[in-house]
Amino acid sequence: MKKFNDLKDFADEEIHALLELANRLDVQPEAQVLRGKVLSLLFLSPSLRTLASFQAAMIRLGGGSFVISPDMSIHGLETRPGIVMDGAAAEHIREAVPVIASYGDAIGIRAFAERRNLEDDIADTEFSSLIELIDTPYINMESAMNHPCQNLADWKTLDDLGIPANGGKFVLSWAYHPKALPLAVPTSTLYTAARRGMDVTVLRPEGFELPEPLMQKARQAAEAAGGTVNETDDRVAAMQDAHVIYAKSWSSTRHYGDKLADQELRSNFVSWCVDEPWFDNARKDCRFMHCLPVRRGVVVSEPILDGPRSVVIHEARNRMLVQMAVLHQMLGSGS
Amino acid sequence: MKKFNDLKDFADEEIHALLELANRLDVQPEAQVLRGKVLSLLFLSPSLRTLASFQAAMIRLGGGSFVISPDMSIHGLETRPGIVMDGAAAEHIREAVPVIASYGDAIGIRAFAERRNLEDDIADTEFSSLIELIDTPYINMESAMNHPCQNLADWKTLDDLGIPANGGKFVLSWAYHPKALPLAVPTSTLYTAARRGMDVTVLRPEGFELPEPLMQKARQAAEAAGGTVNETDDRVAAMQDAHVIYAKSWSSTRHYGDKLADQELRSNFVSWCVDEPWFDNARKDCRFMHCLPVRRGVVVSEPILDGPRSVVIHEARNRMLVQMAVLHQMLGSGS
Amino acid sequence: MKKFNDLKDFADEEIHALLELANRLDVQPEAQVLRGKVLSLLFLSPSLRTLASFQAAMIRLGGGSFVISPDMSIHGLETRPGIVMDGAAAEHIREAVPVIASYGDAIGIRAFAERRNLEDDIADTEFSSLIELIDTPYINMESAMNHPCQNLADWKTLDDLGIPANGGKFVLSWAYHPKALPLAVPTSTLYTAARRGMDVTVLRPEGFELPEPLMQKARQAAEAAGGTVNETDDRVAAMQDAHVIYAKSWSSTRHYGDKLADQELRSNFVSWCVDEPWFDNARKDCRFMHCLPVRRGVVVSEPILDGPRSVVIHEARNRMLVQMAVLHQMLGSGS
Repeated sequence: MKKFNDLKDFADEEIHALLELANRLDVQPEAQVLRGKVLSLLFLSPSLRTLASFQAAMIRLGGGSFVISPDMSIHGLETRPGIVMDGAAAEHIREAVPVIASYGDAIGIRAFAERRNLEDDIADTEFSSLIELIDTPYINMESAMNHPCQNLADWKTLDDLGIPANGGKFVLSWAYHPKALPLAVPTSTLYTAARRGMDVTVLRPEGFELPEPLMQKARQAAEAAGGTVNETDDRVAAMQDAHVIYAKSWSSTRHYGDKLADQELRSNFVSWCVDEPWFDNARKDCRFMHCLPVRRGVVVSEPILDGPRSVVIHEARNRMLVQMAVLHQMLGSGS
Repeated sequence: MKKFNDLKDFADEEIHALLELANRLDVQPEAQVLRGKVLSLLFLSPSLRTLASFQAAMIRLGGGSFVISPDMSIHGLETRPGIVMDGAAAEHIREAVPVIASYGDAIGIRAFAERRNLEDDIADTEFSSLIELIDTPYINMESAMNHPCQNLADWKTLDDLGIPANGGKFVLSWAYHPKALPLAVPTSTLYTAARRGMDVTVLRPEGFELPEPLMQKARQAAEAAGGTVNETDDRVAAMQDAHVIYAKSWSSTRHYGDKLADQELRSNFVSWCVDEPWFDNARKDCRFMHCLPVRRGVVVSEPILDGPRSVVIHEARNRMLVQMAVLHQMLGSGS
Repeated sequence: MKKFNDLKDFADEEIHALLELANRLDVQPEAQVLRGKVLSLLFLSPSLRTLASFQAAMIRLGGGSFVISPDMSIHGLETRPGIVMDGAAAEHIREAVPVIASYGDAIGIRAFAERRNLEDDIADTEFSSLIELIDTPYINMESAMNHPCQNLADWKTLDDLGIPANGGKFVLSWAYHPKALPLAVPTSTLYTAARRGMDVTVLRPEGFELPEPLMQKARQAAEAAGGTVNETDDRVAAMQDAHVIYAKSWSSTRHYGDKLADQELRSNFVSWCVDEPWFDNARKDCRFMHCLPVRRGVVVSEPILDGPRSVVIHEARNRMLVQMAVLHQMLGSGS
């Protein structure tokens, strides 16, 4: 495996093999398989789960990793192309990325969306420009529109819970949050649930529609896999017989890159905090998923998050397991 | 071993076994025993020795660790219970702790005392609330009233120096410091020296008495082990024939949680800086111990700290060795 | 090997052995040789390549490392000798360095020049004062006047490129930079190229002469190795038939420690940005070297840095390989 960037790049059997490997490594550790191997981890955006779970994954497989992030005592990093560097930044990402990559057998990179121009972000322009600088295997640790490690962990979580692929009802719901957050998780989660063959409903207020090209990508995946994709702002209709609600806040696509207009629009939807009444017409054992971090009492009520519906810690732990599988296939002896 | 939280939880033979193991690992490395094992390290308070020595300990045993601390580029951590998270913090400790724990085979947690309410801190309320969130083995890396890794390292240091258990004279002395520091080291050191069977004198100005429940805990331990516990503000009496003086500054318990009153009281005791005249009637080879970090010329004079009485570097290195023993018993194949 | 501080401390055959070992480890990994071994890394100055490459090097050899730097959530570090520590800093470097060293089998230390007094910096006073505190093997990760890891990596790079030792023409050129940078890289690079037996020209504006004792050290090395050392401010003369230009900015030695005067002087030399016309009379395949980080459009033009002359990424990767060789000899079973 040379890259792990988008589940779309993998055939069904490849995804299933990764999930099986993740399950196997959970019970049959292979503490020698990556001995002497190095994973470079470059965080241009904040992280907790990704930071911790990748380090843990490499140790469990016998290798190791190092972390570079701009909050460290490194020379400030410049990201703008073609600039005369007479300001504060002493190093350009054009050198930093290939140098960091050159110390590892693979590199993981996180770079959130710039959220200035929706077309650029849909095209994953910034992440692609970083990847062009290297020729080592790489892992997308969240870019403008992809978060494949989260997606694979969520797929495994759905499998672990026994939620059916075809016929499983998956609600991806927008939730209130004081900030305009990136689209990577909702768009790639939408694709993932569709790709798994589920009946997916995107529940969101008007103005928060997911970008049409990504809705289209998901519809095609659903069609091929025997699922469906719908969207609505009608909570009751969406939650009918749902197996799982996956909550996430995201930016208004109507006002993309316009913080003030986004703020004004979202302020109307403070009530979009997932709570027990949402589940009135869902399946009795309907689960609550979230990629974390999550704001208590804002995105979801405390009773839901701390209650039996919530599988968020299980989801987070699955991050480590699926990443072990990816690293095993990318860097293991058979790679 | 499922937890390493308080020496009180261990029988004498268990403590001796840990100390023997620490000695053995110093000369007979076991670089494979923890291969593939992961220690999660969560620092909610600053650290240098603990941060470095736990990482080193895991590497020496063939495993590894990862570190999370709030100064990293992570999403701000909220610690207050029941709060609506519409402020700066994006993640609650209630998710962060179990997630971080889920990536490790054990977790080390550091969370200093809040120093608002003495009863809460004596009950180690905050640390206990974090531990309730997890079910992995854990290590207390310093809480409001415990610092068992330091305690075990100090015990080993006393053994290394040949200072007698019964009959050994141990002075735990308050020292001046510009800030009101936590009680974890003095109270747990008091217990440790008493538990070792020594004759312990707590030397402190009035207003800086250690909390009575912890004096009581130490007295009981001393009684069982053939030692004694006394307290005084009379330096000459305290230092008579002392084998060791263990210096440490701590908060005024009379004004606990009241910074200004504490400041006013402590300002009278600037002269409590351990210096050569303190040793006039001590044993000739009386040693100086301190857990570090220590303020030169404030807590202790430079000649003492740099001179032959000081064993602070030896103490600090013992941190790594006893932690290797703890990790070996907690995560090793026989655990 | 007990220390890696200055190439001057090593015989030619020792340097060649390190370079051969670096080449061998690149193609024949030894993922077990340092198992259970710990490298302590103390950064008192910023780093990216050194931080990443040492961590990667230890992992590749089967060991590990930990990092301490003052930007971490540690207790503020005091470096001034003999001070009463009643200010912000809670820990003195006199304890921190030996403690950190005591957790490792070797320690790497970075401490840039203070740049107050040239004689002190030439004598590497600060670094020496840190080294006096420890008795573990150590690696200089850049001090006031030494950067031996960079030097050995550059030597390997020159070898890799087939640039002749005797007869090879090496131009060490000052370049513009908005800040007054340390002398460690230029002075130790000068020595390295001279020691390799090359014909070295130091190209710099007046006022930026390298310190005479270090010019003298380089001249002696050149003489013994069959090379030469010259200096000039005449770019055309310097670049004549050059095999390689090694660009680096540095402080004015005329105004050492005087930021304003340095700033005023250097502001006359903004045109010292390496660009294609500089190569007009060089060898056609003349290479561009730089230790990184480098400011694009300030120290060097983008077309040179991104073009075929530039070997800066190759140089940076060699850092890891030569450090693996040093660590292998310092900590390996035959050490």
